[in-house]
Amino acid sequence: MDALEALTLSLSKLPGIGRKSARRIAFYLLKTDNRYNELLASQISSLKEKIRECRICGTYCEGEICPICDNPRRDRSQICVVEHSSDSISIENTGEFHGLYHVLHGTISPLDGIGPQDLSINSLLNRCDGTVKEVIIATNATVEGDTTALYLISLLKEKNIKVSRLASGLPVGGDLEYIDKMTISRSFRGRIEF
Amino acid sequence: MDALEALTLSLSKLPGIGRKSARRIAFYLLKTDNRYNELLASQISSLKEKIRECRICGTYCEGEICPICDNPRRDRSQICVVEHSSDSISIENTGEFHGLYHVLHGTISPLDGIGPQDLSINSLLNRCDGTVKEVIIATNATVEGDTTALYLISLLKEKNIKVSRLASGLPVGGDLEYIDKMTISRSFRGRIEF
Repeated sequence: MDALEALTLSLSKLPGIGRKSARRIAFYLLKTDNRYNELLASQISSLKEKIRECRICGTYCEGEICPICDNPRRDRSQICVVEHSSDSISIENTGEFHGLYHVLHGTISPLDGIGPQDLSINSLLNRCDGTVKEVIIATNATVEGDTTALYLISLLKEKNIKVSRLASGLPVGGDLEYIDKMTISRSFRGRIEF
Repeated sequence: MDALEALTLSLSKLPGIGRKSARRIAFYLLKTDNRYNELLASQISSLKEKIRECRICGTYCEGEICPICDNPRRDRSQICVVEHSSDSISIENTGEFHGLYHVLHGTISPLDGIGPQDLSINSLLNRCDGTVKEVIIATNATVEGDTTALYLISLLKEKNIKVSRLASGLPVGGDLEYIDKMTISRSFRGRIEF
């Protein structure tokens, strides 16, 4: 196997990259400026030493505390709870939310042997001191995401905190003809009265 | 911009990788084994020093001469002419061709200022000594690919060599409903009588 095939094989392990895409990328890398290749290579090899999880909320960041937790202008009365360190970034990119985040690092999943004790739930409860007025649960609309949400709701209600869950239903721009049955069912069950 | 954003930006420059895919890959790289990241990074940074163009045919390979030109069991009476160093590999992967390759390094394209003198055409003619019985032209079915093919055909016919061109028409598995007009037109014009 030569260097080109070896690189193609490594690239094809990346998510969303099949053999053809991997080959196209490898051919592209044979034509790009050396500086781009060097930069990309060094960014890949140094990524895991530079990026850590925020000590407070678990979001990916450089340094011990993420820019969001570190920003005094954030609304500290709201915490948005997500499954994974990457989810905070997806939500933050919408510009919709101005509070703080909390990463659970997974969901309750008995089939996988993951229980509440394996997630960052205690640290969430500890953060819910008097300053927090609303917890927005942004776990995925999946069986595990729903289970985790219900569990958190029961815990947080005891603390007399307002708890909400992101709406689930028809995606923007989607066509009913192509949307899966379960999403349509959920949209029905969650219908809003005007 | 932190290390995660910087890597996402670099990844999004790769062909077929948009911002969302780039971000997905960056998140994936935060979770993979360090050894994978190190391997991928070193394969990317060493690619251009290890892979060169074969001195004889121009195909990408390690070393001066590619395994195909170097293989005495290849059919030396056939040369398959392609536009780019990557095309030989695409064809070789089909297992359909057992001869040798020749890379032109482009196509005749007056609008881009590329003429026959800018391509590896003389070296092709030099290779067509008495041993070569057929030249198969595998340039793309584009205006430039066609132009280049016609030019080569006129030169090679003078040498009394059999010249053929890859068939162009309906792609395998395609549905007429979705195939573009020009491809369908070409399929008509190139129809085969039974």
